[in-house]
Amino acid sequence: MELSDSWSAGSVAAVLPAGGSGERLGAARPKQFCALQGRPLVSHTARALERISWISDIIVVVSLEHIETMKSIIQKYGHKRITVVEGGVTRHRSIFNGLKIFAENKLSNCPLQKPEVVIIHDAVRPFIEEDILLKVVKAAKDHGAAGAIRPLVSTVVASSADGCLDHSLERARYRASEMPQAFLFDIIYQAYHQCNDYDLDYGTECLHLALKYCKTKAKLIEGSPDLWKVTYKRDLYAAESIIKDNLSQQVCVITDMKGDDVQVGFLLHETLKSHIKQVKRISVSLCKDDNYMQNIILGQCYNFICMHVKKSAFQETQQLVDILENANVSTLYPVVLISVHLNVSENASFSSEMEDLTRIKEFAREVKKKNILVYGLLIHYNKDDPQLQETVNSAATIISALIKDRNPELIGQLLVA
Amino acid sequence: MELSDSWSAGSVAAVLPAGGSGERLGAARPKQFCALQGRPLVSHTARALERISWISDIIVVVSLEHIETMKSIIQKYGHKRITVVEGGVTRHRSIFNGLKIFAENKLSNCPLQKPEVVIIHDAVRPFIEEDILLKVVKAAKDHGAAGAIRPLVSTVVASSADGCLDHSLERARYRASEMPQAFLFDIIYQAYHQCNDYDLDYGTECLHLALKYCKTKAKLIEGSPDLWKVTYKRDLYAAESIIKDNLSQQVCVITDMKGDDVQVGFLLHETLKSHIKQVKRISVSLCKDDNYMQNIILGQCYNFICMHVKKSAFQETQQLVDILENANVSTLYPVVLISVHLNVSENASFSSEMEDLTRIKEFAREVKKKNILVYGLLIHYNKDDPQLQETVNSAATIISALIKDRNPELIGQLLVA
Ligand SMILES: [Mg+2]
Ligand SMILES: [Mg+2]
Repeated sequence: MELSDSWSAGSVAAVLPAGGSGERLGAARPKQFCALQGRPLVSHTARALERISWISDIIVVVSLEHIETMKSIIQKYGHKRITVVEGGVTRHRSIFNGLKIFAENKLSNCPLQKPEVVIIHDAVRPFIEEDILLKVVKAAKDHGAAGAIRPLVSTVVASSADGCLDHSLERARYRASEMPQAFLFDIIYQAYHQCNDYDLDYGTECLHLALKYCKTKAKLIEGSPDLWKVTYKRDLYAAESIIKDNLSQQVCVITDMKGDDVQVGFLLHETLKSHIKQVKRISVSLCKDDNYMQNIILGQCYNFICMHVKKSAFQETQQLVDILENANVSTLYPVVLISVHLNVSENASFSSEMEDLTRIKEFAREVKKKNILVYGLLIHYNKDDPQLQETVNSAATIISALIKDRNPELIGQLLVA
Repeated sequence: MELSDSWSAGSVAAVLPAGGSGERLGAARPKQFCALQGRPLVSHTARALERISWISDIIVVVSLEHIETMKSIIQKYGHKRITVVEGGVTRHRSIFNGLKIFAENKLSNCPLQKPEVVIIHDAVRPFIEEDILLKVVKAAKDHGAAGAIRPLVSTVVASSADGCLDHSLERARYRASEMPQAFLFDIIYQAYHQCNDYDLDYGTECLHLALKYCKTKAKLIEGSPDLWKVTYKRDLYAAESIIKDNLSQQVCVITDMKGDDVQVGFLLHETLKSHIKQVKRISVSLCKDDNYMQNIILGQCYNFICMHVKKSAFQETQQLVDILENANVSTLYPVVLISVHLNVSENASFSSEMEDLTRIKEFAREVKKKNILVYGLLIHYNKDDPQLQETVNSAATIISALIKDRNPELIGQLLVA
């Protein structure tokens, strides 16, 4: 993102209205507080803004009753640069409250600096990327205001008083106005100051206020489908699936095997590549190197496979859990850890593995409290077995399924390839 | 649905355009042919119309290259009352082709009768319910045309030639036009006959044509959020989750236990009720009664738990598979079958179960070809165990997770409660 380098620090801030009641969702709690992979939606969105270095401050505006909830979310998930502000009774009043923090900072003790450009986004649009933010912010600098748009999915119709069709809009001429939007701070702040109570209570959106009160014609920027707003229950399902999909793109295989097991380890590594986009393989000793592990984690890897011959299995899995815990890998997302036991023998004898099972179940329950999901997988094979590749295929399929599902109810189970 | 009874047979038909290319989805195949729980989306939608007795004929319009695909879908999933028609290059031309089948039946050998009212729906809106269809059809009878609408999720904006905001529409005055729509056949057919090539190539929707060419002002009917159109990849995720959710509402527990096991069976049955909406319990003998089983299946139950003390486990599971297969339970959706093995003993001895495991895996692989997903669950407990309830809780959680996930990659595994 070359263009972002030239951005002077402190000139872009963001306001995230998160005060909605979520009526349309039909859920008990407002949708911005619904959990996706165990973490509230608003935290996912805040994180998406927070990782962008050139956004200096993020104001999250919530209703009075949710201020403590929001503060504990910030605490629990280690958010930085977020200030919680109390909202108003409508979306516009909430955004206005958020903007006031910057404008009135000389009156209060608030240390936030007034930004040149302010981004306004939605707490319920978690999949926001840097490129669209940058486009919208740059367009706002040039035009005073800018906003993301999308093609209309449905035809828009106007109804007459009797509930019948008055006319259909020509779909190609119109667009859906989405978020993010961005404004020169002085323009949007002035617009909010000048607008009347009707605007604040019933007005549809900020772009319109900037046009009406500041004669600023916003630049419209074509955005990606990912900008959509989590509105209905189905949108929560979709968001959960997208996050799971993103989390299952990478796996790190940790191995220190010698002898015959090297063959199976290599085979599994190769076979996994046709299931999972990126498969890394590191040794147990490397995994004890803090710097190396930090790089793996910065690379957004949330899945680990610990391979061992059966004797040392349990201790190594425990060691890896300690490493993952110390590196805070599981703060934002649940981490999947699959303990793969290679069992070479001529005669099947499962009983010793089954004795381990009770211990693994208890262990997995404990470790789940740290947001790490442990599963066991037994690869039982005979030397020079002609069906070895088939067994490894089965193992890769099970591993891939466990990573894609991230099912917390199946932790501690010992699956068999 | 009292009002539907008064409907005279043969007067309502439906046209389902399914010719879209699915560009927006970014998938290899058009979205209407993407699989949801293993079955193409268009089959789900066709089924939703087909189960409504007062819709006499359903015309599915597909592009030339998909005619054979569509015919094999009809064959494979046992669809009735569906006629496949070749589409045109645009949606409107496809719908027109569908309508012609009824109007020109005297010319061809087509036995379809011209309906009084024709429903037009989308192949990619699978969650259509009878009540909205009935409302739209009745309104079409009264007004000549009718269509489902939804509130706008986003503000709609018009852009000027330079890509800037021209004006925002007042959201409250407009609606999104969705499907289904319905028309007096003569009106929509006349509209299509009169409209020009520009309408057929670029026109947005049928309601507009009825207004423009027949001066028919369509009645607009508020629909539910379920009417949404599967457009993007996220919509496929959402649809899959909704279907899984619907499939996991009911479970049928089949048991014939005597002695100590009755206690565990009862406990599990009670505990499952807090995980799954509807839990039925029947005996093995009842399950061999064809009529009884047909009722269970008509009640849309796609999940079965077969409970046994360990000795007879395998044979009974096999018997149940035969019963489910003969009853064609798994034609439309994968059926989950969990074989629960109760193992009462003072000393844990897993080895005999583990010997069964290899057989269960092979069995499950075979049965999967019949769209039945078999999993094993071992409930190992000691008599008068104070932790029995905890073990049963664990079993219920695992059962519920298996039913909700319906994961084909984990079949044949023996999980332990
Ligand atoms: Mg339409
Ligand atoms: Mg908006």
